[in-house]
Amino acid sequence: MSNNTTIKERIGAFREWMRQEGVSAAIVNTADPHLCEYIADHWKLREWLSGFTGSAGTLVVAETWAGLWTDSRYFIQAAQQLEGTGIDLYKEGLTGVPSIPATLTQKLPQGCKVATDARLFTATRFKQLACQLKENGIDLFHSTGFYRTWANRPAMPSGNIFVHELEYAGETASDKIKAIRQYAEEKGANATLISGLDEIAWVLNLRGGDISYNPVFYAYLVISGNGTSTLYANNSETGRNLGKDERIASHLKESNVRLKDYNDLMDDLAAMQADWCYDVNYTNADIDTLLSPKCKVSTTPTMVLKSIKNPTQIKRLQEAQTADGIAMVKAFCWLDQQMANGKKVTELSFANHLDKCRSEQDLYYSLSFNTISGFAHHGAIVHYGVTPETDIELHNGNFLLVDSGGNYLTGTTDITRTVILGGKATLVQKKDYTLVLKGHIALATTPFPEGTTGAQLDTLARQFLWKNAKDYGHGTGHGIGHFLCVHEGPQRISARNNNVPLKCGMFISNEPGLYIEGQYGIRIENMVCVKNCCETQFGKFFELATMSFFPFDTDAIDANMLTAEEIGWINSYHQQTFELLAATNRLNTEEKEWLRNKTRQIMLP
Amino acid sequence: MSNNTTIKERIGAFREWMRQEGVSAAIVNTADPHLCEYIADHWKLREWLSGFTGSAGTLVVAETWAGLWTDSRYFIQAAQQLEGTGIDLYKEGLTGVPSIPATLTQKLPQGCKVATDARLFTATRFKQLACQLKENGIDLFHSTGFYRTWANRPAMPSGNIFVHELEYAGETASDKIKAIRQYAEEKGANATLISGLDEIAWVLNLRGGDISYNPVFYAYLVISGNGTSTLYANNSETGRNLGKDERIASHLKESNVRLKDYNDLMDDLAAMQADWCYDVNYTNADIDTLLSPKCKVSTTPTMVLKSIKNPTQIKRLQEAQTADGIAMVKAFCWLDQQMANGKKVTELSFANHLDKCRSEQDLYYSLSFNTISGFAHHGAIVHYGVTPETDIELHNGNFLLVDSGGNYLTGTTDITRTVILGGKATLVQKKDYTLVLKGHIALATTPFPEGTTGAQLDTLARQFLWKNAKDYGHGTGHGIGHFLCVHEGPQRISARNNNVPLKCGMFISNEPGLYIEGQYGIRIENMVCVKNCCETQFGKFFELATMSFFPFDTDAIDANMLTAEEIGWINSYHQQTFELLAATNRLNTEEKEWLRNKTRQIMLP
Repeated sequence: MSNNTTIKERIGAFREWMRQEGVSAAIVNTADPHLCEYIADHWKLREWLSGFTGSAGTLVVAETWAGLWTDSRYFIQAAQQLEGTGIDLYKEGLTGVPSIPATLTQKLPQGCKVATDARLFTATRFKQLACQLKENGIDLFHSTGFYRTWANRPAMPSGNIFVHELEYAGETASDKIKAIRQYAEEKGANATLISGLDEIAWVLNLRGGDISYNPVFYAYLVISGNGTSTLYANNSETGRNLGKDERIASHLKESNVRLKDYNDLMDDLAAMQADWCYDVNYTNADIDTLLSPKCKVSTTPTMVLKSIKNPTQIKRLQEAQTADGIAMVKAFCWLDQQMANGKKVTELSFANHLDKCRSEQDLYYSLSFNTISGFAHHGAIVHYGVTPETDIELHNGNFLLVDSGGNYLTGTTDITRTVILGGKATLVQKKDYTLVLKGHIALATTPFPEGTTGAQLDTLARQFLWKNAKDYGHGTGHGIGHFLCVHEGPQRISARNNNVPLKCGMFISNEPGLYIEGQYGIRIENMVCVKNCCETQFGKFFELATMSFFPFDTDAIDANMLTAEEIGWINSYHQQTFELLAATNRLNTEEKEWLRNKTRQIMLP
Repeated sequence: MSNNTTIKERIGAFREWMRQEGVSAAIVNTADPHLCEYIADHWKLREWLSGFTGSAGTLVVAETWAGLWTDSRYFIQAAQQLEGTGIDLYKEGLTGVPSIPATLTQKLPQGCKVATDARLFTATRFKQLACQLKENGIDLFHSTGFYRTWANRPAMPSGNIFVHELEYAGETASDKIKAIRQYAEEKGANATLISGLDEIAWVLNLRGGDISYNPVFYAYLVISGNGTSTLYANNSETGRNLGKDERIASHLKESNVRLKDYNDLMDDLAAMQADWCYDVNYTNADIDTLLSPKCKVSTTPTMVLKSIKNPTQIKRLQEAQTADGIAMVKAFCWLDQQMANGKKVTELSFANHLDKCRSEQDLYYSLSFNTISGFAHHGAIVHYGVTPETDIELHNGNFLLVDSGGNYLTGTTDITRTVILGGKATLVQKKDYTLVLKGHIALATTPFPEGTTGAQLDTLARQFLWKNAKDYGHGTGHGIGHFLCVHEGPQRISARNNNVPLKCGMFISNEPGLYIEGQYGIRIENMVCVKNCCETQFGKFFELATMSFFPFDTDAIDANMLTAEEIGWINSYHQQTFELLAATNRLNTEEKEWLRNKTRQIMLP
């Protein structure tokens, strides 16, 4: 069967496998065995089987019925893509829409079997699902057999892998391994299994091109209690052999890491001696089933160690931010010129131009996520991804929201600016913009005592909106990796309970917003770094130092709503931005003039 | 043995009991079987045995050694009171001070037995302690035998019990019983056990005088699935018989509640059928041991139902607040007059005068807690309780912090004001006072979306202090009962994780502070009530409506640090305060003039 098959034919072949195996239904969710945010095509069975291309969704196939569950971001897209396939759409989060276990319980007889790939679940989620089904007499079991029905399944990726040199990483792999080993020793464990791809890349100072946006590669890493560690990254199926690359080979040798085949891991784990460390929240359920009876340490220190950046990483990120600011200036200056000259610009053509400007910067590697370019009402769709089908032309008088970032060898960036096209905002538009900006400034300027969590800071950014009975439905900030994933834990700035105290060296986003459905969206985002502020009789205080440099839109600001302190902060930030970016000599005269104008000082009203 | 025995003699008799019982040590903590914040003398064995009179502490007596653990509030007092008793002081919270289980493990042989009264622990705490000891081969068991060594133990209290009439309570006991019964039914339980004294008082619209400050009485309440409920409040030992009081008898009959003896509960529980509801967090470990094997519902709705006040309670509280404001005006006006006339006033004489002013108000019942009157450096001691030994004279030029409240039939009040004596504050004093006031105002004026928890609001009150690298070490607000306990859950405003969303009708305190050790303390507290603010496209918004009325100290305010909005709020609050209190005709001419002056409008600088 070729890739030219219809969805109905694919589901038919899948059901044939189910009949042969005596399985009443199968659950096909969207993930990979490393529980990454972005996944390689090799793992996109749900997309291939259903035709639905969204980044989140779970397909359930039974003998005479199939359903797809997805969230509100994809209701419209899923309905279109599922049309005529015979797959029912279940809109998650809407009242009255039954859950997967409830639906299976209702549709299947007691005593039947349901297959799923346990590697695509965290242990907690898998157990919960199995338990809910078991209560109703349905047996959930792990199977990978159904992948055989996937004709022309893409191979495991085999992107380029390379060393992230010490001049950027700031700490050797050996030192990181040592710290992880010490943690295991303290916990009385023999070894540590790491299965998070960004954690492996960070530990070993290696990066790879297996997945879009995230510079990681598929592998597992076992750090033994002493002696040699093992990287399961070679792949006889795809011909990947890292040992062939001299630089990587010598790097791994220095770090005392040997190579094994990716597919050898499970046999090695089955033969292992207790006790290992592994992080139960970032390890898949199939591995957890093997390890949990033998291990009592269900945490590793890697996530926290990775989140606290060293001085080299902080210094390098500033270089990345400068490059990023230059790209932003070039793109937004171009936009103003095009609009002024009456040339047509669309959401997509602007996004493409911005991506191009970024790609021309020194040490650029890739985008850190798909650029969001949302004009007018599209800006109010929080995760709007422009496509040729949704693309609209930009015109004066409304907001363009642009959320974008790059991966550079020097670090990962993430910045959002919202601009009023044509420079003339209405009073209502200015008020909304300024309320969001005031929240952004409050977070950027309020020191907080050591031990404070992001949950405690979230309200700082919302208070001005709340005073006007407005709010936004997302968190205020997420952790950010260093030349790694643009979303990284464990820290975040969010009202949801979060016990992680902010520590010096953590990178986080500061991104309050406001979304007026059908009209426009506003989001203002800079990256910040937790740093020491001062120490008084009340203890140590930290602050969130702003690291992104690109002007806010002064045309959208109502200065009457700002305090003298807020105006002072904006003026100082703009001056810093101009001095930093103009000094690079990477802007031409027009761009420099554009930046000078955009960073002009605001007067106290 | 009489009460004239020495501590050594008391401990000696206690050890004699231990020898007879084959017990190696006994743990005597500070609580009652209902886990109340304040306890009756009947339960103060720890105080009697050790001579230490603080409100928190745990005594451990072993054969040749005894130790008392208490927290930093009591380090000095405990050291003084334990001197010469042979009891070692363990300062909880200091580095290197071992815990009780660690100390017992070190001092006692494996296989020995330790006695304690399980009724004085929550189930969680008792299990944790038993488990820590068990790990080291020590067996913790429940015993009440050692009370026999307490010569002249005070009897169980038998204070006056009376009906809190519907005109104040706003909802009949029958209706509350119905709501609790419905919850049990939904959970599939037959009955509900309530052991929290404030919960019982609330459910039955009864109040009593068994405990200082909290108008409750010792009892248990069992609400059956249908028919008659049982109040275990009579006491053959003390002669208490509620049925003799005609008003109570008819009230209980109306509510279909029968009376039994307090001491009958445990036998009835032992004979009970599964399944009951009881709240595992507010039930003692002895009862939990009986119930937990037979019950699966470990929550009751009582705490949440009680926390959401009905319109009558809210209206009545406003009357209580007016009475309270009048008492405050009379006391602070008197203070100014005394000081102006050069008469000596001390912390204690002011507290006594204020208490007297409160006691003269209509429908006054008692203080809601021991009045805190802390001048200068005493104000920096957060829980300072003035005694004749610590009392100091007040003089001009420093802050007096007064935290006080009353129980009225109409409700419970709690208010803190800090005043600069003599009316002349330094710039530094003004700055500190104004930073605290700004936090208080932010909490009082910022609406928040439905679903918001107190944990999210805490930072609103701290942000201005944080900007100056200052902070305070306590939460910002606690729940408050209605003619009940001044501290009540489940809601609070605190950085500690707290998943309880604020609901309309909840009473909370708004009390940021600042404590400069050795110099002064500042705290500004009003009671607030959660109420509806508005509904927009972003959902429902609530706000904290201020319910206490007494002027802030305008002499301590630096108006240059306030926004026009903040000044407007203070002026409006002061105007409301004057109009409300002056209109009562309960102030004499001098007091009215004093209030007029204290509520004069602040000018925009």
